[in-house]
Amino acid sequence: MSETFRIGLLGHGTVGAAFAELLDARAASIERLTGRRPAISGVLTRSRGDAHEIVDGADLVVELMGGVEPTRELVERALRAGTPVVSANKQLLSRFGDEVWAASREGGAALRFEAAVAGVVPVIRVLSETLAGAHVDRIHGIVNGTTNFILTRMAATGEPYAGALAEAQALGYAEADPTEDVTGADAAAKMAILARLAFGAAVGLDDVVYEGIEHLTADDMAYAEQFGLALKLVGTAERAGEGVSVRVHPAFLPTGHPLASVDGAFNAVTIESPAITEVTISGPGAGGPQTASAVLGDVVSVMRGAPALDVASVPAVIASDVESAFYLHLEVADRPGVLAQVAERLGLQGVSVKSVLQTGLETNARLVMVTHPVSESRFYAAVELIGALDFVRAAPRAIRVIDESFTA
Amino acid sequence: MSETFRIGLLGHGTVGAAFAELLDARAASIERLTGRRPAISGVLTRSRGDAHEIVDGADLVVELMGGVEPTRELVERALRAGTPVVSANKQLLSRFGDEVWAASREGGAALRFEAAVAGVVPVIRVLSETLAGAHVDRIHGIVNGTTNFILTRMAATGEPYAGALAEAQALGYAEADPTEDVTGADAAAKMAILARLAFGAAVGLDDVVYEGIEHLTADDMAYAEQFGLALKLVGTAERAGEGVSVRVHPAFLPTGHPLASVDGAFNAVTIESPAITEVTISGPGAGGPQTASAVLGDVVSVMRGAPALDVASVPAVIASDVESAFYLHLEVADRPGVLAQVAERLGLQGVSVKSVLQTGLETNARLVMVTHPVSESRFYAAVELIGALDFVRAAPRAIRVIDESFTA
Repeated sequence: MSETFRIGLLGHGTVGAAFAELLDARAASIERLTGRRPAISGVLTRSRGDAHEIVDGADLVVELMGGVEPTRELVERALRAGTPVVSANKQLLSRFGDEVWAASREGGAALRFEAAVAGVVPVIRVLSETLAGAHVDRIHGIVNGTTNFILTRMAATGEPYAGALAEAQALGYAEADPTEDVTGADAAAKMAILARLAFGAAVGLDDVVYEGIEHLTADDMAYAEQFGLALKLVGTAERAGEGVSVRVHPAFLPTGHPLASVDGAFNAVTIESPAITEVTISGPGAGGPQTASAVLGDVVSVMRGAPALDVASVPAVIASDVESAFYLHLEVADRPGVLAQVAERLGLQGVSVKSVLQTGLETNARLVMVTHPVSESRFYAAVELIGALDFVRAAPRAIRVIDESFTA
Repeated sequence: MSETFRIGLLGHGTVGAAFAELLDARAASIERLTGRRPAISGVLTRSRGDAHEIVDGADLVVELMGGVEPTRELVERALRAGTPVVSANKQLLSRFGDEVWAASREGGAALRFEAAVAGVVPVIRVLSETLAGAHVDRIHGIVNGTTNFILTRMAATGEPYAGALAEAQALGYAEADPTEDVTGADAAAKMAILARLAFGAAVGLDDVVYEGIEHLTADDMAYAEQFGLALKLVGTAERAGEGVSVRVHPAFLPTGHPLASVDGAFNAVTIESPAITEVTISGPGAGGPQTASAVLGDVVSVMRGAPALDVASVPAVIASDVESAFYLHLEVADRPGVLAQVAERLGLQGVSVKSVLQTGLETNARLVMVTHPVSESRFYAAVELIGALDFVRAAPRAIRVIDESFTA
């Protein structure tokens, strides 16, 4: 009988229970692979278990309790003592990244967190290992399955946001209180984690600008189709000048983009680097069994002796103004000269238009256009000028468009 | 100044030269990551260098010379001496897998080969690490960029195989002698490597049944569109009964399948496992810089202390008859009773039809159908009976169809 590898399990909710079950089922094959038999040496639930005793008596801590307190103290305690930690906790990693990575360095203990971003889609491993030493320029990700499910339904059926959300809730893809998902906050935490890893910069949740999907309309979807674009909630982390920019917002993708065809509750991440052009990884977003499987992959890596990642904590310079192409939707009075006046305001700010669609709607008309890439500040300055024109009947609607530079 | 990590480079063709250049450009960042500065300590070219001296004087051997002799002797020499090897050599790994893995075990030296399959698409890492300890049921892959480029052109333009091949050659996507690619042999070697890794079974190139794309016609493409299917050269490695089945052949994919939208010279692999449902990884197929980047990723992993994989060499049981759905294309005389007689022959062998399309063509008609999954032996027995019917005007054409069981 080989040596036992003691796993202290913090948290026994859906994912914790699924992990315990999966570990049990795979223990024999992991023993063959690593020479040690993994076994759970202690479980902390809401009502039972001595947290410090479990942490101190483990060869590895699996943290699936969520939240930041007292989780943070327990994770840092383990790491400082040299005990590796596997965590799925995006809140902890995105809000206290500096602190937990400092503890990992101090104790020389591995911290792994594949399950914190995009469930079983192995983006953390690809970034930290396959692309270790490569220069990553940009990451685009669909990292929230709930919003992608809602947008996919809106695009497929033409129904409004509220109806698609209700359907997602009925099917268990959205929670009763969907705020964290639909506002983009969940995706923002994940993008902060990816940015830290990709750029070696101390990006935290507070550095991420985000916008949700609640204001999107069936109209936006219909125009997207006419322009050959798919509307998704896209997280972007990219180098911009001397700094980095990390943000989450609804964005139109050209149909050839690898993320455009990612539908339903799936997640996908595209990583761009000069050496590789781009790699896209996709799969189901987090469910209990998928998340447990991602956690188990990390556990096996640690058991096989994977070294601690050295995730740099160089202060991040956050770029405040980045370039993007835009979709602009205007409701205007249907009279001559409207397009000319709009075009003039755009031109004043250096915004160049790529395509325009004008449709009549009784006495009103709609003017929908897609611009070439331009700095966001200039674009919004132009939108402010346009919004002040007397023939504009409703607040202008603007949505970013991701260009085709890297598509196949 | 930190310690130097000596890399012996075997081969200095397109990929070898690209690797040397990339290593040079990234040496400083790799030194920060690993504490050692990688440097090339010797290069074996066609005309220069003492192979044994280079191998024996290295901390790691990068094998990019290709071929199986004398490559195999050099790779095994390094591994037996405990020196890790990074290789992009699919011929060596698929034809002499038993021997090189035995040498890796004997010397306790890591053998890494991400670049051997699907270029920069990190399928080896995902299989061997993310999914270590998971039970993989099936892998589907588009692992040859040349044939995917040709099929994409045929589908987009309606041009015949020969024209699309000529175009691929003119653009550098196909070699002057495209045999290795268009016959499916290249894809077969890659699928053998994936199967060994995924199933821990000693699968070699000889165990892989393969079929190329030379006989595909513009007609097949046109029908594919009518049935809502995409025609690709697909490699499959799957568990079948007590054994495994590994094969490469043209196959129709439903448009919702993650591989259906992989176009041009891209590669992509879908891995199915109960715990994760499925994960798809896609990116550009191998070019010099991409392959060099995949090799460098492996080098960095070894420098960071990644342990040797224990790739089992349990004899493989190769399943001889597996189930598949089929597309069947018949040119028949246009007279009553034809469909009934064809259906009767199919029924005799237990082949059940999912959809049928009949189109007139002057005095001839075409009968195109898609079946439900059935064992290949039964299906081909039915095709033989059908081919003997007097109203069948040309040899029946059959192409496999991959079902939708795992799509989003």
